[in-house]
Amino acid sequence: MSLLVVGSVAYDNIETPVERRDDVPGGSALHFAMAASFFSPVQLIGVVGGDWRREHTARLESRGIDVSGLEVRPDGKTLRWTGRYHENMDDRDTLDIQLNVLAGFDPRLSESAQRSQFVFLANGVPQTQMSVIEQIQGADLIVADTMNFYIETERDALLEMLKKIDGLVLNDSEAKQLTGAVDTLVAARKILELGPRFVIVKKGENGAMFISRHEIYLIPAFPTENLVEPTGAGDSFAGGMMGYLASQGKADAETIKSAIAYGTVAASFQVEGFGAEKLEQITREDIDERLEKFRRMVNF
Amino acid sequence: MSLLVVGSVAYDNIETPVERRDDVPGGSALHFAMAASFFSPVQLIGVVGGDWRREHTARLESRGIDVSGLEVRPDGKTLRWTGRYHENMDDRDTLDIQLNVLAGFDPRLSESAQRSQFVFLANGVPQTQMSVIEQIQGADLIVADTMNFYIETERDALLEMLKKIDGLVLNDSEAKQLTGAVDTLVAARKILELGPRFVIVKKGENGAMFISRHEIYLIPAFPTENLVEPTGAGDSFAGGMMGYLASQGKADAETIKSAIAYGTVAASFQVEGFGAEKLEQITREDIDERLEKFRRMVNF
Repeated sequence: MSLLVVGSVAYDNIETPVERRDDVPGGSALHFAMAASFFSPVQLIGVVGGDWRREHTARLESRGIDVSGLEVRPDGKTLRWTGRYHENMDDRDTLDIQLNVLAGFDPRLSESAQRSQFVFLANGVPQTQMSVIEQIQGADLIVADTMNFYIETERDALLEMLKKIDGLVLNDSEAKQLTGAVDTLVAARKILELGPRFVIVKKGENGAMFISRHEIYLIPAFPTENLVEPTGAGDSFAGGMMGYLASQGKADAETIKSAIAYGTVAASFQVEGFGAEKLEQITREDIDERLEKFRRMVNF
Repeated sequence: MSLLVVGSVAYDNIETPVERRDDVPGGSALHFAMAASFFSPVQLIGVVGGDWRREHTARLESRGIDVSGLEVRPDGKTLRWTGRYHENMDDRDTLDIQLNVLAGFDPRLSESAQRSQFVFLANGVPQTQMSVIEQIQGADLIVADTMNFYIETERDALLEMLKKIDGLVLNDSEAKQLTGAVDTLVAARKILELGPRFVIVKKGENGAMFISRHEIYLIPAFPTENLVEPTGAGDSFAGGMMGYLASQGKADAETIKSAIAYGTVAASFQVEGFGAEKLEQITREDIDERLEKFRRMVNF
């Protein structure tokens, strides 16, 4: 079924203890779409500036991603994030962020986008996420991501948005920040009271937890031995998950369980390169092979 | 098959943000034996002082634990640990530790203890662990625990001991401390080069990882909603695991996988009371029931 993602497209400057790369194509919507494209057709809504190189759009198109909703503003510049990872590769400092064209991002959905059945609102301003929700007509599943910045500065708008979605994906620390709970599970249960019927709490190298009213799923991270840098891991996790759900055309508990495993595997490839470069080198077969390896590591 | 544990027996004074309890029977060998006793007969080797109350020995006996190797030194006092847990219930401060009779602990194994097929060397002085290994005759499986203090102060003795064991159980931070690696998996692989054929890295609320030359198993923690205090969680994890292995009489990869799940479930009950009190209230059926619940949370 049709899958839509609305979010940022960016150029990232990324520094690790080992290497620095500039102008890495990134952003939440790009990473999501790359991962989702292994499973399902995906439509990307976002905005870039005149500095966005045509070849980077072409790379998305070559993966079957519908970029008709990627607005180009020739007079503006693309969102640019500059960050540095610590020795542990988990903590990072944002050295600079220039919103550029993203500052005025007001997504207008085409008719086909409005009729998407699976929708992912990547990390962004809650008011923008809400505006997308209002344009969507009868989606089967709407899932959103958020972050500490919006929890702090746009709390009311975020709480309104939470009432309108099926699922929320966020980091452990963000779940605790949003609810004031010190325990992950308690935090997740409090989020369920705010609207979503499920929450997925991401714990980085410690995996993720899915919580709905009646189910809890625990999923470890895949232990990669080739960590390059983790930018976009959360987005490719969501992309793998939503892509699989869209491919199955359903989002019941059992399907979500498999979807989370696929998301985990997509994220495990994501972190093996700068930006999405590793995902560009692999095939669906690589994903399925690693999924089976992961299953042997986890199931008992 | 026969299971032996050598380690500490203690009185703990435990303070949480909610409650303080003094004189809680504890120690690594006690918590291990309590958890193991659900699965297999277990023999406990340890030492206590004249202040150790007979009723606390009786409680171990009532669970079928062989305490003939629990030495009582009437003129000495039992090991006493006093600790305070932080708000997050994961970090803790040791406020006081009095080794007392444990300072002169020099375990002499009975003939039956020497012939144990499954042996667990709970956290303790590496030289003492080594002395036990030298007394053991042809065990199927010897597993040891260690901690930051011995990694720092008794490194050489610890490295000697590692050459003689089949498996090592330790915390994530300790694995990194022992090897200098910043990544858990890298740390574990380095430990395999030091002797053990497998390593189990415990990550507290983030579960555990089993690593051998050819296998990796990932196991999340069971998400308890009734956390009281976590003292002894690592020991009951090891006790559940080793108890299950002893009950099966083998330690191949598949059996270890189930054993780790049983250990996780035992630990999940352990943290639901002060010391071992919760384990005293439950039955093997409770453990099996939670294991099935856990399986549904994890398998995909």
